[in-house]
Amino acid sequence: MATPTIDGLQYSNWSEEIFREMRAAGVDAVHVTIAYHETFREMVLRLEEWNVRFERHAELIFLGRGGDDVRRAQQEGRTAIFFGFQNPSPIEDDIGLIEIVHSLGVRFMQLSYNNQSLLATGCYEDNDPGLTRFGKQAIAEMNRVGLVVDMSHSADRSTLEAISHSQRPIAITHANPALWHPARRNKPHEVLAALASSGGMLGFSLYPHHLADGSNCTLASFCQMIADSAERYGVDHLGIGSDLCQNQPDSVVTWMRNGRWTKQTDYGEGNPANPGFPPQPSWFQSNLGFRVIADGLTQVGFAENERAAIMGGNWQRFFDHSFGPPGS
Amino acid sequence: MATPTIDGLQYSNWSEEIFREMRAAGVDAVHVTIAYHETFREMVLRLEEWNVRFERHAELIFLGRGGDDVRRAQQEGRTAIFFGFQNPSPIEDDIGLIEIVHSLGVRFMQLSYNNQSLLATGCYEDNDPGLTRFGKQAIAEMNRVGLVVDMSHSADRSTLEAISHSQRPIAITHANPALWHPARRNKPHEVLAALASSGGMLGFSLYPHHLADGSNCTLASFCQMIADSAERYGVDHLGIGSDLCQNQPDSVVTWMRNGRWTKQTDYGEGNPANPGFPPQPSWFQSNLGFRVIADGLTQVGFAENERAAIMGGNWQRFFDHSFGPPGS
Repeated sequence: MATPTIDGLQYSNWSEEIFREMRAAGVDAVHVTIAYHETFREMVLRLEEWNVRFERHAELIFLGRGGDDVRRAQQEGRTAIFFGFQNPSPIEDDIGLIEIVHSLGVRFMQLSYNNQSLLATGCYEDNDPGLTRFGKQAIAEMNRVGLVVDMSHSADRSTLEAISHSQRPIAITHANPALWHPARRNKPHEVLAALASSGGMLGFSLYPHHLADGSNCTLASFCQMIADSAERYGVDHLGIGSDLCQNQPDSVVTWMRNGRWTKQTDYGEGNPANPGFPPQPSWFQSNLGFRVIADGLTQVGFAENERAAIMGGNWQRFFDHSFGPPGS
Repeated sequence: MATPTIDGLQYSNWSEEIFREMRAAGVDAVHVTIAYHETFREMVLRLEEWNVRFERHAELIFLGRGGDDVRRAQQEGRTAIFFGFQNPSPIEDDIGLIEIVHSLGVRFMQLSYNNQSLLATGCYEDNDPGLTRFGKQAIAEMNRVGLVVDMSHSADRSTLEAISHSQRPIAITHANPALWHPARRNKPHEVLAALASSGGMLGFSLYPHHLADGSNCTLASFCQMIADSAERYGVDHLGIGSDLCQNQPDSVVTWMRNGRWTKQTDYGEGNPANPGFPPQPSWFQSNLGFRVIADGLTQVGFAENERAAIMGGNWQRFFDHSFGPPGS
């Protein structure tokens, strides 16, 4: 069987059109965001919306629960959808909800989203005291059931502590090296080196605020950044986590940034003059851009097997070992 | 493989002692009650308690999701625990929660518990207008995902309508024929005949209020009632649904009867002089009583294959065909 194409993160305004683009692009599995600031009950409403999509578009998508579902997607010509949270708000203050959300299909959970959470610190806080008491307990429980720790929006000390505290490899599903583009959301060398040496995975982001030159970032620059990362961290720990937010109204990015925690307006990576979603690079407007990136990786010198590993083979291996109890 | 022993309903004060009694009695699967009046979120707390039990007593019990799990229980010398609701309160007013609770392992749901619900009428109401609009929609969705309609505590017209509206066989997991012991919770001949002719299942109850002579009911009388039922409805539609409430404090039966719906005290099948749980018959105090019933069935003339069918073979067949999408 060919190596699959896997996207480590999307949060689009889901539609049949987008699911058809996934198929046209040969995208076999996508980790989709279910929650930013939702309570448990609100998060369940989001799952219900996915159940309606799975029923209506059964010929295009289905719920993925383990690595085998990526192979099943390839065989059946469908896309396996894997659930994740960008914030631990859906588990509230209740460690028992970790196994519950895993039973419901959730496979990734960020320990924090920009702000301090009950578990860890977000990358926009002034101070990062590291993992909380609940955070350490939650990681142990996540390790037990097979819910992957994702530190994409967390602060660096918390991230380093999560890497060392977790008994199983963790992920930064969507971010880029700060060495290429210094941004609050991109990750310093120390974090990426620790991530790779612990067997973790980095998904390269195509969200313009994470790109050198933003919306004008070139394909060549993006792919050369991946080549440089492969040299630094090894090709085995790299994948794509596009952070694609296709067809979303700007109200959605406002919700992501502000939730219910402020009465002022937080602009996150934007600013008052550019408060909305930034325009995607011309070469990555939709899932169809996956074929463009694959070509770009060849152009910067990756061999076929390395290109396949980055486009999905590495995520496949990570999915195979991460979504059930240890050793399963 | 031997025919399994299956109990169609219990709601005990769960403990290692009880799980060890299940094993000592060779009880391979038990449908346990998760909710009486709980909201969705409260019900999830009950599931979390079960997850703790599954983790602590993994050598004795595990979560059953399908008929194959009964066979797995037999092979591994454990008991498969199947979840059910005695009331639809956990799905609130939200049809999408039916698939969600199924994903969490729930396999039975009563459409009403004594009172009128959003779906159907309970057996203590003065008037029974039959299935509601939501009730009909809910049955169709339960049929789709494989969540069994249970009408144990429902009123007769609602029950007859559920039998005819459901595209798949339903269950009355715990009740007895009113012909043997006229009681509000026992079922008239018309209901039991319709249940059996539609492929449904009746679980015979050992709750004293459902028994002729109550706590003094004899084993011979109980088993003769089963023999009479087999003659009337056919042996294939009969099982045990003991309604065992072992080691429960009386506060629990008060919660069952009163929930949060009354400021007065409803005594249900009890009365002010006997407000608590009635004493179990001497021959059925715990799961160990299953072996006693099996002997009693032989004594009233059942052949070995008929006895095995009633003790669990019929439930096994029903479990095999009821807990997934149609045809799965």
